[in-house]
Amino acid sequence: MTRKDFRIFMMAHPRKIEDIFEDADLARLHALGEVTINRGSSISDEEFNAQARDCHVIMGQFDMPAERLDQCPNLRTIINLEGNFLPNIDYKHCFRKGVRVLSVSHVFAEPVAEIAVGIAIDLGRGISRSDRLMRRREERWGLEANQNALSLYDAKVGFLGFGDLGRALLPLLKPFRTSFKIYDPWIPEMVIEQAGGAAAGMDEVLATSDFVFVLAGATQDNQGFLGAREFGLMRDGAAILLLSRASVVNFPEMLEVARSGRIKIATDVYPDEPLPKDDPTRDVENLLHSPHQAGALTSVLKHIGRGVASDVELVARGLPPMVCKQAQPETAARFRSKPVEQS
Amino acid sequence: MTRKDFRIFMMAHPRKIEDIFEDADLARLHALGEVTINRGSSISDEEFNAQARDCHVIMGQFDMPAERLDQCPNLRTIINLEGNFLPNIDYKHCFRKGVRVLSVSHVFAEPVAEIAVGIAIDLGRGISRSDRLMRRREERWGLEANQNALSLYDAKVGFLGFGDLGRALLPLLKPFRTSFKIYDPWIPEMVIEQAGGAAAGMDEVLATSDFVFVLAGATQDNQGFLGAREFGLMRDGAAILLLSRASVVNFPEMLEVARSGRIKIATDVYPDEPLPKDDPTRDVENLLHSPHQAGALTSVLKHIGRGVASDVELVARGLPPMVCKQAQPETAARFRSKPVEQS
Amino acid sequence: MTRKDFRIFMMAHPRKIEDIFEDADLARLHALGEVTINRGSSISDEEFNAQARDCHVIMGQFDMPAERLDQCPNLRTIINLEGNFLPNIDYKHCFRKGVRVLSVSHVFAEPVAEIAVGIAIDLGRGISRSDRLMRRREERWGLEANQNALSLYDAKVGFLGFGDLGRALLPLLKPFRTSFKIYDPWIPEMVIEQAGGAAAGMDEVLATSDFVFVLAGATQDNQGFLGAREFGLMRDGAAILLLSRASVVNFPEMLEVARSGRIKIATDVYPDEPLPKDDPTRDVENLLHSPHQAGALTSVLKHIGRGVASDVELVARGLPPMVCKQAQPETAARFRSKPVEQS
Amino acid sequence: MTRKDFRIFMMAHPRKIEDIFEDADLARLHALGEVTINRGSSISDEEFNAQARDCHVIMGQFDMPAERLDQCPNLRTIINLEGNFLPNIDYKHCFRKGVRVLSVSHVFAEPVAEIAVGIAIDLGRGISRSDRLMRRREERWGLEANQNALSLYDAKVGFLGFGDLGRALLPLLKPFRTSFKIYDPWIPEMVIEQAGGAAAGMDEVLATSDFVFVLAGATQDNQGFLGAREFGLMRDGAAILLLSRASVVNFPEMLEVARSGRIKIATDVYPDEPLPKDDPTRDVENLLHSPHQAGALTSVLKHIGRGVASDVELVARGLPPMVCKQAQPETAARFRSKPVEQS
Repeated sequence: MTRKDFRIFMMAHPRKIEDIFEDADLARLHALGEVTINRGSSISDEEFNAQARDCHVIMGQFDMPAERLDQCPNLRTIINLEGNFLPNIDYKHCFRKGVRVLSVSHVFAEPVAEIAVGIAIDLGRGISRSDRLMRRREERWGLEANQNALSLYDAKVGFLGFGDLGRALLPLLKPFRTSFKIYDPWIPEMVIEQAGGAAAGMDEVLATSDFVFVLAGATQDNQGFLGAREFGLMRDGAAILLLSRASVVNFPEMLEVARSGRIKIATDVYPDEPLPKDDPTRDVENLLHSPHQAGALTSVLKHIGRGVASDVELVARGLPPMVCKQAQPETAARFRSKPVEQS
Repeated sequence: MTRKDFRIFMMAHPRKIEDIFEDADLARLHALGEVTINRGSSISDEEFNAQARDCHVIMGQFDMPAERLDQCPNLRTIINLEGNFLPNIDYKHCFRKGVRVLSVSHVFAEPVAEIAVGIAIDLGRGISRSDRLMRRREERWGLEANQNALSLYDAKVGFLGFGDLGRALLPLLKPFRTSFKIYDPWIPEMVIEQAGGAAAGMDEVLATSDFVFVLAGATQDNQGFLGAREFGLMRDGAAILLLSRASVVNFPEMLEVARSGRIKIATDVYPDEPLPKDDPTRDVENLLHSPHQAGALTSVLKHIGRGVASDVELVARGLPPMVCKQAQPETAARFRSKPVEQS
Repeated sequence: MTRKDFRIFMMAHPRKIEDIFEDADLARLHALGEVTINRGSSISDEEFNAQARDCHVIMGQFDMPAERLDQCPNLRTIINLEGNFLPNIDYKHCFRKGVRVLSVSHVFAEPVAEIAVGIAIDLGRGISRSDRLMRRREERWGLEANQNALSLYDAKVGFLGFGDLGRALLPLLKPFRTSFKIYDPWIPEMVIEQAGGAAAGMDEVLATSDFVFVLAGATQDNQGFLGAREFGLMRDGAAILLLSRASVVNFPEMLEVARSGRIKIATDVYPDEPLPKDDPTRDVENLLHSPHQAGALTSVLKHIGRGVASDVELVARGLPPMVCKQAQPETAARFRSKPVEQS
Repeated sequence: MTRKDFRIFMMAHPRKIEDIFEDADLARLHALGEVTINRGSSISDEEFNAQARDCHVIMGQFDMPAERLDQCPNLRTIINLEGNFLPNIDYKHCFRKGVRVLSVSHVFAEPVAEIAVGIAIDLGRGISRSDRLMRRREERWGLEANQNALSLYDAKVGFLGFGDLGRALLPLLKPFRTSFKIYDPWIPEMVIEQAGGAAAGMDEVLATSDFVFVLAGATQDNQGFLGAREFGLMRDGAAILLLSRASVVNFPEMLEVARSGRIKIATDVYPDEPLPKDDPTRDVENLLHSPHQAGALTSVLKHIGRGVASDVELVARGLPPMVCKQAQPETAARFRSKPVEQS
């Protein structure tokens, strides 16, 4: 296909093109063909027909029902630029027509994995607690500051969920000589073993781990699967980090446990964000708060553009995309992520 | 040598035998020969002559001048159980007599390396700052919480000093695809390269690194070597972590820089510990405080006992010790650590 | 779906069911539903209709033209048990109908990677040559045996092709501190960089590498892409290993180069296998011969069964397969592997 | 110490200065002080007094009895440039006088580790055997070539001895997901565990390993410790590689086992080197021969010079050497290496 025959349509809203594309990566797209950018926040049928209908690649989070899909004779790939598979697309229709649907969620795996390591060490070694006590003139020193400390070295680590995030986190923990028990009902035991972990049931992971990382995306099947019973299985003094979606946890029960001080808890996600100012959980001593900042780095957003450009280059050459995450017919309908508000 | 001929003397003060030896490791020592334990805080010449003089291994931090050394015909090894080479021993006399002097400082390398990773991620990603702001009802969310964030991934890392701590820290950072520039005037370029780093001058390390880890032990040559000029070389927004000894830094100048907010700073050590309650540095927003808790874990102290038992077993068999750190004739006189107060 | 509704059909020819399935893995399939096994070497339409037509999973290498596909209302997945995507299937028709086509080629990546390391060290250090010379009473000793030796340590390594095999090989070479230049026109630069290599053109890879690993599968585009010109780009004394398909090399020109002794060459594949007894290349001193044994381990065949059972379990639960390699609409038509004769 | 006060003496025989020093490394020595090079093969007392007596560093393998040592008032370090601690030096006298004795044996660890990996894969996968059979027109193809193949992947690996060589070899094997059982009576269990292995008795290592690497240097205690009884403990089809010293094995009994074909054997060392032409072991099909070529690479010899220059720079600055291996009072008398003949 020659350059003039290839057409790309982009509407990044609620992101901004400039936030996710370096100039060099935009230039790569322009080198492939004709690029139309819509900077609005919604697209009318008229605009759609004028700008997107003939394109081979469509990027954006706007509605793509069967009716629109059927008007796109050249369409090969739709790319969500936010980071999740949202219900804006008629996935079944895409699969029937051989249109690939991609998301850029993979770029968030590394920054979340990084902060997961930082938060785990913080829970285990009391970094933010000691800093807080220093400011309150209440700190203790040396050995006494480390009462009940928990080290990652030689620790038993549990993962609930083993997708991109788990795969990014595992190699960061390995140098601490940790062992891994992993629960993910969608992943074969064999895949977990090849990654260096041991497959286990959820209860076993909770009951035997020093550090539990909650990494499971929200699906229709796992709403609130972590509650009082599950936290109750954990060892005294163990740590649990909620890094994926608030909806997988029974939040009030988690806060109850946090208040008890029996286990160490951190969360990056909340049922309502931002958390109301008067929410009393803000003052729970034994809960490390992170205002949904795990994945949302400016520097990471630029990785979106590089990955998208790489995949669109492949698509333009008639090759399958390799960088972005691809929606699968079997699972596309099961995810339950909400659209994010500019994050 | 038969069991009844081998004698061991231990006076752990200011540590406690029970803090550093598991029962199993004490049993290993008892299996080697006769073990005498003195639980006091000082030892008179009379006690010394009665308890330690004939021993093959002496453990403790009490005075060992030439006069006492000359009274110990069987002595092969002296082990400091605190963690540094202190000026309590006539090192020259030991070397002349073929007495090895060991310390257990190596056990602190891993816990300090662990917290160094946690603090680095905290400085870069604002973990404790965001938690503090959540408690103050002043936090920002998502992308906005991550303004000026600095990621370890693909970061340029600088080490000032490359001893046990640097060697423990380096493999924890490698999975982040960091590159390493290392300054240590005592270590050949070749050794640094084999470890996976690049040797560089101190100014270059400071000027080019995203994260600078200050890991240099205190010597007679490096008092206050990091001051306003050196901090001034660092990039805007870069991070520096002081993890070894407060004396290598010009502390007032460091605090000045912290107040400016130009770079991110964390310290685990202070010129006077504990820091006075009214010290104004406690309130500096841009300084992460850690009350000398990096190495002092209860769980780590038990590693002392295991390492000591391993080395004393070797000594009893006429083999060189392998686990503890050994004083070297060339450098023993240069270290300037102060005795620690029960940490 | 209940167990009694799920149906699996297997015809392993030219493999044997027992070679590729452990009892435990066969039992996993039987636990999923009704399993029909055909031990013949071909399947008539009559047999097909009776045994395979209603199945959800069909395994085998027999013909699956559109006509047969259209008779399979439940079919979700076809699995080739040999190891390549062969032209026995109407791929386009499968993609249209949402039928996934899998192959088990991934299981061969590790054994080939292993022998690639062994052969590379053999070429570099002369293991088989020295053994041969010992048997001829012509060996040299010590330093003299190592004239022109080439070490993997700190070597510049080049890959031509970066699929499963390259990904398996790369971590085996990394501990030798090798650097990697990788040429693969189907793989984005970004993917190569994330794996730890640098993307480069083919000529650059050839001209700058100490060891070149030819890992490219045969496609319609790369027949004979390595010939006299390309070998001529290589450094004196460098080594090249042909591990994928003979058809990517101009074999006569490669043999010419081998005879010259200018570079070190090994091959595991030949245009005609077995190589005729009277083929004069058998006696070329400077060519390491491997009779297509790189991937074909009995122990590896059992991995096929485990992977297949894992993926069929996922399919039975309505989830996407994760272990086997999946045919992609864009590339399925481009591969040019020949059916293997029982290997 | 100023440059003009520092003196270095070198007599490399039986090596050649040019073989072990790059120009740049020689220049580093010259930059430190006055360098005297003796190119002869022995040194008279007269020469010694004129050339070496006042030196701070003496390099060479010539006799250094107490009488000569006592004539060297400045001597701090003696460096053996061949690679072993030989009985040419009065070690006790050195230790008494505080003279360090170094050897460059560490440089051979990596090349031997490399060829050990190559030979292990060769034994397991039949690389040289298949090449030999190709030349004889007797080869088999594909699966049949791999009868009794043994893969390093997931293999149980045993080390007999865990010095420099074991430490270099272990990280090369780890990517194959091997487990390690290690026998070394001089090394504490704790050190072995920290390296990622499990300490075990010799019989257990032999009886449970797929691959046994014999890495033990020759000492007064381990002559012929591997004989018929020990080989008899090994599993059918397991592999054993003799890479250190021939004297640790009962060679006739090893050959008997090799002839039986019950286990796979390779050796790089022989009781008499070169092996006589008429030695019948040359024709044993099931024994991989390597003519003492494991460590002796031209390229490796240059590493000697770089390491020596690095250490002498430290010595000149009054610091302890860090690169070369240091003789220890406890073990110096136990090693039993013979001087090598130019290798």
